[in-house]
Amino acid sequence: MTAGEREAGSARSVAVLGAGSWGTTFAKILADAAAAAGDPRTIRLWGRRAEVVDQINTSHVNEQYLKDVPLPESISASTDVAAVLDGADLVVIAVPAQSLRPQLREWKDLIARDAMVVSLMKGLELGTDARMSEVIGEELGLPAERIAIVSGPNLAMEIAREEPTASVVACTDSAAAGWIARSCTAPYFRPYTTADVVGVEIGGIVKNVIALAVGICEGKQMGDNTKASVITRGLAETSRLALALGGEAKTMAGLAGLGDLVATCSSPLSRNHTAGRLLGQGLTLEEVGQKMTQTAEGIKSGQAVHELAGKLGVEMPITAAVVAVLAGKLSVDQLGPLLLSRELKPEGDY
Amino acid sequence: MTAGEREAGSARSVAVLGAGSWGTTFAKILADAAAAAGDPRTIRLWGRRAEVVDQINTSHVNEQYLKDVPLPESISASTDVAAVLDGADLVVIAVPAQSLRPQLREWKDLIARDAMVVSLMKGLELGTDARMSEVIGEELGLPAERIAIVSGPNLAMEIAREEPTASVVACTDSAAAGWIARSCTAPYFRPYTTADVVGVEIGGIVKNVIALAVGICEGKQMGDNTKASVITRGLAETSRLALALGGEAKTMAGLAGLGDLVATCSSPLSRNHTAGRLLGQGLTLEEVGQKMTQTAEGIKSGQAVHELAGKLGVEMPITAAVVAVLAGKLSVDQLGPLLLSRELKPEGDY
Repeated sequence: MTAGEREAGSARSVAVLGAGSWGTTFAKILADAAAAAGDPRTIRLWGRRAEVVDQINTSHVNEQYLKDVPLPESISASTDVAAVLDGADLVVIAVPAQSLRPQLREWKDLIARDAMVVSLMKGLELGTDARMSEVIGEELGLPAERIAIVSGPNLAMEIAREEPTASVVACTDSAAAGWIARSCTAPYFRPYTTADVVGVEIGGIVKNVIALAVGICEGKQMGDNTKASVITRGLAETSRLALALGGEAKTMAGLAGLGDLVATCSSPLSRNHTAGRLLGQGLTLEEVGQKMTQTAEGIKSGQAVHELAGKLGVEMPITAAVVAVLAGKLSVDQLGPLLLSRELKPEGDY
Repeated sequence: MTAGEREAGSARSVAVLGAGSWGTTFAKILADAAAAAGDPRTIRLWGRRAEVVDQINTSHVNEQYLKDVPLPESISASTDVAAVLDGADLVVIAVPAQSLRPQLREWKDLIARDAMVVSLMKGLELGTDARMSEVIGEELGLPAERIAIVSGPNLAMEIAREEPTASVVACTDSAAAGWIARSCTAPYFRPYTTADVVGVEIGGIVKNVIALAVGICEGKQMGDNTKASVITRGLAETSRLALALGGEAKTMAGLAGLGDLVATCSSPLSRNHTAGRLLGQGLTLEEVGQKMTQTAEGIKSGQAVHELAGKLGVEMPITAAVVAVLAGKLSVDQLGPLLLSRELKPEGDY
């Protein structure tokens, strides 16, 4: 498909790779969007585990991740990634961030040459400090205009329940961003578009680390003043990192920056927020891992964010403190006072 | 006192006018700050009602507003405003926004000619659309460098309980801002300084209106995605208004903008948030008024903000919707969909 063809219409055949809560929910959005617009669309969902895939095909639910939310019957699931990718003009990826690169190497030859690839992932690769769009570009050999990000205040369970939600589609090619936005505009899901891929990705990545900090404060029974201060300072350090990488300040003030951060830090549904709360209550990192069935991405990405900030000379004191707690170098009791411990001075610029 | 004398030291004699939750709490901060620094300081608190004043003097509590929080014995309260203002080099005002102007006319001749005046109030005057610092300047005939604002994520009850909190002192004169910041730096209260008086005031005013909108969403049982979107769009329209008035974007991204908004919208302690929730649950404005013992400032300031935005040609759709609900022109059922109903388009600039 050429950029010109994307000026109108929407995706005809979609492959969603990853049948966790967000991948499955996004497949539902794409199905409901096609139904609402009266567009014909094939939606195939790839999952690793046969029992999840079977349940989606036969009972139209994904109990482990979305409880009893009914899924559209137009979604077909499979463990056969080649069958799922066959003929897809839109490929949506929602796998754990740290497993993306090896997965892409397996999938590369199965993805259509002209497909758009959308990342739903919010993580930074350990070791390389690469964003998900960079990993996709490198491994699939795709130019930036073929890669997009969807991110925003998007707690999957709330969207699955069709509660009204706004989101952002980021792509350097505005026609492609519009085509994806049209493809996923459902009665309860409203996407906006932007060209600031870096800002949108950094917002999604760092908010998981800040959510850990806010969760720790909550676990330590600190109040809403403190949590609001950590969110405010957290967004400021996220903005500093995004600007250093070429992102825009207005993105950080928007749905994929502030919006996503606030939703994550408010919700008991957030994994990173929950992980932080358990740490704040005194559990060890190992105990937190055992208690949670899903990945808290911030635990892994925090170290990569800290390293990236160090390379770029960007001050990120909250991230540094969270990484020190995760590494066992700082206790959660020491974290709280540290978050508000700067000298009397003018409130900082970015 | 000259600006030069404010380069060092802190307030020696403070009058706090208004013995509600925030006025009383700020008197406690000023007392604890002096004790921590070893500075001599007189702190007098003026209240309208004899029973509140007596309770503060004899039992060192303000039960109606701060429950059983113990107040420092160094605070003396009085209903005699002349005695309270006598010799004060720092005058802190915390009265309902709509009664400020008539109060100032009574107090004008009692305030020392060289005193600094600090506003803790977050409202816009109905009819004139004047900010509190403007009302103070007009009525007392003071230049801008003698008027300051303290604002931030400052839920009074949490601060009274000595939970760590950050805040912002705004004054066009940086030496005066620093003098006030030193005067109120307590072990649990950390003020930053800024020269952006307009931004700090507008942040505090509009957040009460946005908190009403978020409260209504909560009363209608909408999820965290929706609330986070309303907070994000709400801060964007607050920023548009602040910029139109000469405020700075970075202030809106800071403690007195984002921080205060998030704290207010997260907390069950917030009056505006609570009033919104009751409206969302279906109560009438009159029933909400009867149920609440304290003023929900956003109900009064909302109309003034809406008028000011209209005069300046600033788009404030959330404020407009809240004002329409308060005026009975829009039902709370119509509000929710309206908040997310904009056309598919790039995410907006300020």
